[in-house]
Amino acid sequence: MTGRFADRREAVGAALVDTGATALLVTDPRNIAYLTGFRGSGGAVLVETDGQAVLCTDSRYELQVVEQAPDVGHVISREYVSGVLGRRRGRADAPLAVEADELTLTAASALRRTLADAGAPDTRVIETSGVVEQVRRRKDDSEVALIERACAVVDDAWTHLLTSGAIAAGRSERDVAADLEHAMRRAGSDGVAFETIVASGPNGAHPHHVPGDRLLADGELVVLDFGAMVGGYSSDCTRTVALGQAPGRLIDAYTVVLEAQLAGVAAVRPGIACSDLDAVSRGIIDSAGYGGYFGHSLGHGVGLDVHEAPAVSSRSTSTLSDGDVITIEPGIYLPDLGGIRIEDTVAVSGGGGRSLTTTSKAFSVL
Amino acid sequence: MTGRFADRREAVGAALVDTGATALLVTDPRNIAYLTGFRGSGGAVLVETDGQAVLCTDSRYELQVVEQAPDVGHVISREYVSGVLGRRRGRADAPLAVEADELTLTAASALRRTLADAGAPDTRVIETSGVVEQVRRRKDDSEVALIERACAVVDDAWTHLLTSGAIAAGRSERDVAADLEHAMRRAGSDGVAFETIVASGPNGAHPHHVPGDRLLADGELVVLDFGAMVGGYSSDCTRTVALGQAPGRLIDAYTVVLEAQLAGVAAVRPGIACSDLDAVSRGIIDSAGYGGYFGHSLGHGVGLDVHEAPAVSSRSTSTLSDGDVITIEPGIYLPDLGGIRIEDTVAVSGGGGRSLTTTSKAFSVL
Repeated sequence: MTGRFADRREAVGAALVDTGATALLVTDPRNIAYLTGFRGSGGAVLVETDGQAVLCTDSRYELQVVEQAPDVGHVISREYVSGVLGRRRGRADAPLAVEADELTLTAASALRRTLADAGAPDTRVIETSGVVEQVRRRKDDSEVALIERACAVVDDAWTHLLTSGAIAAGRSERDVAADLEHAMRRAGSDGVAFETIVASGPNGAHPHHVPGDRLLADGELVVLDFGAMVGGYSSDCTRTVALGQAPGRLIDAYTVVLEAQLAGVAAVRPGIACSDLDAVSRGIIDSAGYGGYFGHSLGHGVGLDVHEAPAVSSRSTSTLSDGDVITIEPGIYLPDLGGIRIEDTVAVSGGGGRSLTTTSKAFSVL
Repeated sequence: MTGRFADRREAVGAALVDTGATALLVTDPRNIAYLTGFRGSGGAVLVETDGQAVLCTDSRYELQVVEQAPDVGHVISREYVSGVLGRRRGRADAPLAVEADELTLTAASALRRTLADAGAPDTRVIETSGVVEQVRRRKDDSEVALIERACAVVDDAWTHLLTSGAIAAGRSERDVAADLEHAMRRAGSDGVAFETIVASGPNGAHPHHVPGDRLLADGELVVLDFGAMVGGYSSDCTRTVALGQAPGRLIDAYTVVLEAQLAGVAAVRPGIACSDLDAVSRGIIDSAGYGGYFGHSLGHGVGLDVHEAPAVSSRSTSTLSDGDVITIEPGIYLPDLGGIRIEDTVAVSGGGGRSLTTTSKAFSVL
């Protein structure tokens, strides 16, 4: 076997050895896409320790599976679990690993029935967590290229939004979100990576605000958090801008967040503990007296999921390494007044970090 | 208790009695929203047979849960399952129902640990399927009103798209999809209900085509399948239009699909078996000689999920009743040539069906 999908399956197969299983039943759709290229909405994959794999999906995808996943075996059936297990090599009762965070009780029952029907009712089923997700952390060149394209889309869309005058007093958050998503689509996005956030004035104090009918007004900040998808991969970017003369306290907080964000990006390198990275940015915000107003973690991995491993937080036990792609997104949220968040998607490579989102973060008054 | 959320929980509580359980652990996010009003992305609810409920979510949602779900008990914890079980009334070892299609093995293990810690390790855990989903089928007035608004959004957006000249030879599928989504947002959508489909020319022969860089051209059909979300509820609509002079075979097929669609909508009434309804439209397509080119089911329920109960297919065992909201969406797909699909969202009420999407379905040449 050659090719990037085979490489990924071999890495998963190697990781399996520690679990004691000879095969992993993969039911998470993102993991299926990662290991085979298949991007339909239903199916299962069985990966064996040598990286050999078989994929079962239903007849809706009979043509698509051949196109997208040519280098694995195919079974067409609505019974995904029995479909792949029927093609397992070796002993039917060899220990089998499953994705415990994904497999439902209904699917687990189907698995038990299938094993019993195969004369192997006592097969040991090993509940694993994050086996494929840990391999997914190390992005290969083709993956970084797609994330870069998704980042170029948000850069283009953001530049378009600023120059088109879409962010203006009197417009609703909802309309600004509509324009931003339209600009991403036109720039090549396959769809949004997550629900776009446009949070104006006091709404900016809520990190996860949903854009509504509130009209943007002079003298306030607007937080915009947005991401595109290209070829299944996400980007994630936040910018905060001012409309007219914002309160001095928010301008001060902006300079603190920007300093924290730049320091965070500068500290990205293979070998740094994610908790230490979080502390770099958090320390700057704490020292400036805003420690109580930054309640979320500094960042997260980005890839097929917009939130994936590693967590970049004070509690994280991960250490960065080449191939990680993460966000750096400190914020300050002042209740009833407003908020600031500045975020880039950053690739870990060549001994440091490289921002894939590149638009200006200087304080901008529109 | 009064109010629509209490009514829904009482209906679920009543449905529970048949399972032998005295409470249902609800972990499906849509079901949590349906039963409590809470729309955060993480949590669990325990509903008892009398409709009393407790909701556990984490500290991100501490304020939101009070606003959105004022009439249930709240627990703030990252351990959702133990959070709600800690507030269960009555015997700790009374049979407990779970949502087997939703509960993961990881969550099931947390449940077992919690029961053991409570001194009730032998509690019977009953795997149920579709308990809340069956109650969700009967939409109340507030739900129908939201689906109507989501349908008005797609009507407005479609009218805007036609009059703006956005569907034109030389434009890419991707750009048309961008314009359609933008128009839905501007018309009041909170976001797309599903990935917008714009399938031009031969791409129209694939029911689930993803819009790409292909340019629309004169002499072909374009299939557009799109939905909006309002207040958590979805709409679903498909229209097919011609650019210039389309091949006679496609025009003929269009008239057949339209006849099948109109007959399907006209046949909607409380008491009809969903399989019979499917047969009404399918029979017309079969009789016209296109039976081999309509491979999917006639429709599906629409609500908090864009695909929910009941299935409207030849294999469905459901019967329509007042309060169902479904799609009627026959199609004909001619390989390498093109496709036609026409779809409305239809409410079952007052002895018949009422289309909530209302734009023209007459054959249109742009």
